[in-house]
Formats: sequence, C-alpha cells, structure tokens
Amino acid sequence: MAASSATPVAGVLGAGGPRLAERVAAVDALVAVLAGAIDGPAGVRAAGLVASGGKRLRPLLTLLLAGDGPAAADEAGERSLRVAAAATELIHVATLAHDDVLDRAPTRRGVPTIWSTDGAEAAVATGDALLAAAFEAVSRDARPEVSAILATAASSLAAGELMQRADAFRLDITVERYEQRVIGKTAALFEAACRLGAIHGGVDAELAGSIGRDLGIAFQLLDDLLDIEGDPAVTGKARGTDLLDGTVTLPLALAAARDPEFAAVKLRELDEPAAAELCDRLIASGTCDEVRASALGRVEVAQAAIAALPGPEGRRQALALAARALVDRSA
Amino acid sequence: MAASSATPVAGVLGAGGPRLAERVAAVDALVAVLAGAIDGPAGVRAAGLVASGGKRLRPLLTLLLAGDGPAAADEAGERSLRVAAAATELIHVATLAHDDVLDRAPTRRGVPTIWSTDGAEAAVATGDALLAAAFEAVSRDARPEVSAILATAASSLAAGELMQRADAFRLDITVERYEQRVIGKTAALFEAACRLGAIHGGVDAELAGSIGRDLGIAFQLLDDLLDIEGDPAVTGKARGTDLLDGTVTLPLALAAARDPEFAAVKLRELDEPAAAELCDRLIASGTCDEVRASALGRVEVAQAAIAALPGPEGRRQALALAARALVDRSA
Repeated sequence: MAASSATPVAGVLGAGGPRLAERVAAVDALVAVLAGAIDGPAGVRAAGLVASGGKRLRPLLTLLLAGDGPAAADEAGERSLRVAAAATELIHVATLAHDDVLDRAPTRRGVPTIWSTDGAEAAVATGDALLAAAFEAVSRDARPEVSAILATAASSLAAGELMQRADAFRLDITVERYEQRVIGKTAALFEAACRLGAIHGGVDAELAGSIGRDLGIAFQLLDDLLDIEGDPAVTGKARGTDLLDGTVTLPLALAAARDPEFAAVKLRELDEPAAAELCDRLIASGTCDEVRASALGRVEVAQAAIAALPGPEGRRQALALAARALVDRSA
Repeated sequence: MAASSATPVAGVLGAGGPRLAERVAAVDALVAVLAGAIDGPAGVRAAGLVASGGKRLRPLLTLLLAGDGPAAADEAGERSLRVAAAATELIHVATLAHDDVLDRAPTRRGVPTIWSTDGAEAAVATGDALLAAAFEAVSRDARPEVSAILATAASSLAAGELMQRADAFRLDITVERYEQRVIGKTAALFEAACRLGAIHGGVDAELAGSIGRDLGIAFQLLDDLLDIEGDPAVTGKARGTDLLDGTVTLPLALAAARDPEFAAVKLRELDEPAAAELCDRLIASGTCDEVRASALGRVEVAQAAIAALPGPEGRRQALALAARALVDRSA
C-alpha cells in the first residue's frame, strides 16, 4: 500500500542530532538482522522483502518521539527502544507480504512479490514468520508494555485489512467507514510507533498516539491520492491500481455519493485505460482536492500537538519536519 | 492437520482433581471470549473456528504442568496461567486458518473452511487477528516470559509449515528432515504449552519442554498414520489426503528410501482411489508399524520424564493419562 517515492528524511535526521542518525542506522541494521535470523527459506524471503526498500517511517516516528528521553540513560532502555522501533517495521513488512496475497499483487516496490514468485503459501508463512520474529524480539529485549502496544496494532491491522476486503467494489462507503478502515490498516501502527517512542522518551503516550494517528490517516489519504494523481514514472505503478483492485478510496466514495454518474461506475468492468480515465474524471470532480485538504488538516492537527510536546526543541523540530515530509511526498 | 477423533480427556480431568476441571472449563470459555472479541467479520469467523471443535490439547498440557503450583496462590498468577493456556489454543487455531489457505482445504473438522467459503483474504486476516489476539492477551495479562515462549513457538510454526511446503511432492525426505518439520509445525507449540505450565507450576522448564516436544512429535506421527490407516467414518476424511496434497510423511519416505517401487510413485498423478491403494501398500510394507513404534517410543520417553516430575502425585497421574490418550487416539 505504501508508495515508492522517497521521503526526504535527511533534514529530519539533521534536526534530530547525531544520536538520532546513529539510532536510525542501528535500527535499520536491526531490522535486517531480525528478518535474516528467521530460519530457512522464510528468512531469505523476509530479508529480501526488508531490503527491497521502504522508508522506515514507523521506526523513525518511534525514535523521534523517544528523543533523548530517559531510555537513553541506560543500556537496557536503549536496547528496548531500538527493538521496539525495529518491530514496528517488521510488523509493517509482515502485513505487506500478507496484503500481496490478498491483493494478488504482481510487484511491490518495483520487484516481484513473494506471492507472485513463490506462491501464497510462501507469502503467508513469510508474513507469519516476520510477525513472530517481531514479537519474539520485543518479548525478549523490550519493556513489557511494548508487546501489548504492538499486539493491539496488529489486531487493528488485521481488522482494517478485512474491512477493506469487505468493502471491495462498493461505492457507497461513508467517510466514517473509510476513516475506520484507514485507522485499522495504517494509522493504528503509526499510533503504536509513536506510543512506543513516548514510553521510552517520557512523553505522554496519549498525546503521542494522537500525533501518530493523525499522521497515519494523512499518510494513507495522500497515498490514496497518489494512486489517482501520481505520475507512474515516479510512483512506479499505473494510475488507478486501487480502482482496478476494487479498493474504493475516499475521492471516488465522495464523488459517488454526490453524482449518479460516479455511483453508476462498474468497477469490475474497468481496464487500465478506463481506470486512468476515471482518475482524470475524479481529479476534475474536485474530490481529490477535498481529500487533500482533509489530509493536510490532519497534518495541521498533528503539528499543533507536536508543538505542544514537552522537552527539547530538537525533538519538536525533527518531528515537525517528518510531518512535513509526509505532505511533500504527495507533491 | 489435527485429526477429528475425540481424545478421552475425562479420565485426565478426574485424576487432575476439581481445580483442573474448573481451569479447563475457564480456559475453554476464555478462548471463546478472546476469539469473539476480535472486531468485525474476523471475530465472527474466529469464534466459529474455535467453536467448531478441537480437543484443546495444548491448553490442557499447560494446565497439567502447572498443577497446583505457586500460580494458584495468587489471583494475578492464576490469570496469567489461564491466559497463557488460552493463547496456545488461539495460536494453534490461527495456524489452522492459514494452513487451510496453503493446503486449499475445503473442509476442516467436518465444516467448510474459511478459505473455501470466504476466500484466502478472509482466512489470512482471521489467522492474523487470532495471532494478534493471543499476543495482546498475554502481553496484557500474563507474565512477561509467556510472550517470549509463544513467539518462539510461532516462529517455529511458520518455519515448519514452510519446510513442509518446500518438501511437497518430494519422496527423498530423510528421517532427520522429517523430524525437524514435525518439531516446527507441531511439537514446538506442544513444547511451549508445557513450558508455560512449568513456569506457572514451579517445574523445571527444560524438563517440561522435553515432555511437550516428545508428545508433540508422537502426536504428529500418529496423526500422519491416521491419514494412512484411519477409518474415514471415524476420522471424517478420506485416506491418503496428505498424499493427494503432496505431503510426504514418514511411512512413505521410509518406504521410498528402501523400495524403488515406492520411490517411483508419481504423487501428482494420484486420484482418491489410487491414494487409498497406496495407503494399503504402505501398511503392507511395514513402515506404518515402524513409525508407530517410533511414536510409542517417544511417548515412553515422555512418560519417563513425567514420572521424574517433582510435586504432587496427582499431576504425574493426570499427565501420564494425557500422554496415554495421545496413543489411544490412533487405535
């Protein structure tokens, strides 16, 4: 579901200081080590999937929220923080492997999916192994609350993905329903990532969670827009892939609620050129701009919460830059 | 993978005393509650899968090993024990939902699988939700070690299932390789169940783990034999289902290693009558009896370890009866 465009995290790293850059590199390595430590062919596949790209946004949020808080003071706390951050990425990647089965996706991040090359069994088992590796690592090395926060997010991910499947090809999706779906499949893990950082950084977990949730919703809305408006040369996939897949996102749902012509669209009969044409019509309808405004509104709310965070100015600056980067990826 | 024949646990409950019977009932209810608490359609499906049967062998092992140990002394310990026991079953059921996708199984426990009625996406997501529910419950209510033990088992389950897929249709499986597969896909969770009981019951976890591992291997070997020798009227499935599925178990692997006629079997060309005939030839070859002897040998080893357990005689008696019940199901 993630877009393949790069996020400019360099500025974020600069504002976060040398410790952040070091932690980001360490967590990146840890993600690779934990995936690679999985036994047998699942380990090879998991390591390949992890290495194939991804912006490590979730671990970044964890590290940003942690700042230079209490965790840095002792080795066990530092280890707990890094493992927690790495686990958010492992869980994210696990869901990608499973999503590819559900979506019958031929490629992801420009490379063939496990599902397409090795079959559904390999993809399901690789995702299971990644999930287990994440929970194994946190139950061994992280604070007890970390498992609970991640398990709650994993539940939400499964629920959100199922809601999306249940809604496939339906044009009569309400805004509320869509938001619930997005919270489940994307924002819950962003929220968890921020909560994990907060408990290590001595920040109010509810406040941090709300930042993650708002950023996660914005991220998904902008990702949906990329599917409609994005330049295939940049995004790496044809426009309207969601539509061809039966995934009705907010721009079409809003248009269908207002205009009988959109409500009468037969998604199952779309081919690639028709999907691209439908994208053009959606852009012309104005609903894409509406959804963008909603996403930017979420980012504003998150920015206000970021500004209200206690502690060092560096943390607030780096987080604000990260939130800004989420917006820029849609530009 | 589990056979549908009932295990006579009544005798086990009798030997375990009133506290065991109460705990078994409480854990059974807890399994249903935790599965049912999953949001949306996955919750309905998970609850249905949990209610469709199963002998709750894994939770039973946890409770048997726990005996009347220290955990019973305080409410939090008792809660931790029950949640840990319930989680073993939730993880087991989660793997069933995923296995049905991998095996393309039309029915399980006599009812249509989620895969067959609602599709791979629903089955994958339901399994994911059950896994998450298990880890959520233990991270909330059980001792910290519980998550680690279960995550290790979940890793092994994924690895074992992948090994089985990698071995599909291969007749040149060594005994060692087969044992590794069985440890992964079955014995690791039996081992975990016993370890969980041990940490709550004040028993040596290594000793308890070895009992679980041996019983798990025996359970799987006998389950494999049921597929070859079992009466379809009792097992609820045709003989040779594993063979039709490309799952080469030990009786055929042993026969193929010794007899070129078995090594030349074309599994992909089997139909149901040919699979049943192959089962008859395997029985005649003597390898089924060999595998049974090996399984019974494992149970003997487990029984010796059970006899060496410290603590009350009731625990040893109940465990010995449970081990015996594993054997009887093949009769």
